[in-house]
Amino acid sequence: MGSHSIYTSQVEEVFVKFLSSELIGRHGTLVASLGNTSISVTTKDVMGGVIQDWLFTWMKQSEFDVTANPNTQMPPDFYLAESTPFEVKTFYCKAKPAFDLANFSAYIRDLLMHPTRLDDDHLIFSYDIGRDYWSIENIWLRKIWEMSGPSITNHIELQAKQGSAVNLRPKNFISPNSNTFKSRLEFINSISDAMDKFSQYPEGFSSGFSWLEEVKVRYQEATGCVL
Amino acid sequence: MGSHSIYTSQVEEVFVKFLSSELIGRHGTLVASLGNTSISVTTKDVMGGVIQDWLFTWMKQSEFDVTANPNTQMPPDFYLAESTPFEVKTFYCKAKPAFDLANFSAYIRDLLMHPTRLDDDHLIFSYDIGRDYWSIENIWLRKIWEMSGPSITNHIELQAKQGSAVNLRPKNFISPNSNTFKSRLEFINSISDAMDKFSQYPEGFSSGFSWLEEVKVRYQEATGCVL
Repeated sequence: MGSHSIYTSQVEEVFVKFLSSELIGRHGTLVASLGNTSISVTTKDVMGGVIQDWLFTWMKQSEFDVTANPNTQMPPDFYLAESTPFEVKTFYCKAKPAFDLANFSAYIRDLLMHPTRLDDDHLIFSYDIGRDYWSIENIWLRKIWEMSGPSITNHIELQAKQGSAVNLRPKNFISPNSNTFKSRLEFINSISDAMDKFSQYPEGFSSGFSWLEEVKVRYQEATGCVL
Repeated sequence: MGSHSIYTSQVEEVFVKFLSSELIGRHGTLVASLGNTSISVTTKDVMGGVIQDWLFTWMKQSEFDVTANPNTQMPPDFYLAESTPFEVKTFYCKAKPAFDLANFSAYIRDLLMHPTRLDDDHLIFSYDIGRDYWSIENIWLRKIWEMSGPSITNHIELQAKQGSAVNLRPKNFISPNSNTFKSRLEFINSISDAMDKFSQYPEGFSSGFSWLEEVKVRYQEATGCVL
């Protein structure tokens, strides 16, 4: 990849390469063996980890310059060319997207340090799984705010527990009727409203507005663009 | 199995059979293939699901009368002879046991309906995982109270979030020095203390003591034994 790439991002190049590889809908296998017992794994809750491991090797074989985040508990999942972070999300194709977009407290804190997380690409895979196969049924390329959306009760779609905002959660963004945000600004405005609703602020902040202004300033410093 | 079994429980028979099968420490494989890309899965977070799927087939092959709980989100994981519930837990062999024993709110509610959950057997597997193998390094047979233990801050070892008790968690019960409960009674006494500390009671109860008395009565009705 050089400066003349036709792609707007390196993650988009992965996305296009995957689409053109005719892997969508093809049946794969997942076999666990120990002693004389071999099984096809059919538990959905392993598929996120499996797809992430498989994708890493597929990207390497496809000659992408990809590295995995050594801290597997923290975002991002991967870097392209050591500098472009991106996230991988997965969900069962017969259900709605139901993964966590981000931990609320960590995200509002981290956005002050890394405002360009608003621009990070996400590859989202829907998978199917049967008695003796798994498959990738579809793939999407999205920013976080293109999967997030407004909520009447909480200002922004999120999971709350015992009166605290815990995780940002996706809208059903794969539906043509989904009510997702149209811009980064709508997204952080709604986060700011949720911070006020739950009285949850990063250290040093006491209003959603002051956090919002700070993120705007830092995003402009980092990118030269007004949010 | 008949009434003359040398085992105190059917789960113990599984435990002994596994130990005698020389599977401990043997290297197994976990391979995901799609298209031309085959990988050894190395993500620890898939191992719980993989071991559970593998174990189910191994028990069938070993001619145990095992059924999986159709509701995979709820305990127990399996039934033997359609009536003996048991749970499977897994943890990475180079770390301490770190799984959830039970959701606190659900457990204190369920113990009123199913007081014999105090007697349910758990098979616990520690696993290793490398670049191209996985293995089961050890196996234990335990009741829930044999993995639980006292906590100075919360009366019983548990995970609390935002001032609420969320999950019962294990002590490092595999260590000879672990401070686990010695009896079912110690276990439920400490749960009752935690209920008072967190003011978390099942519907219809307003003190740990009243819950405790009810569980004792119902356990005796169900088993004929005094707790």
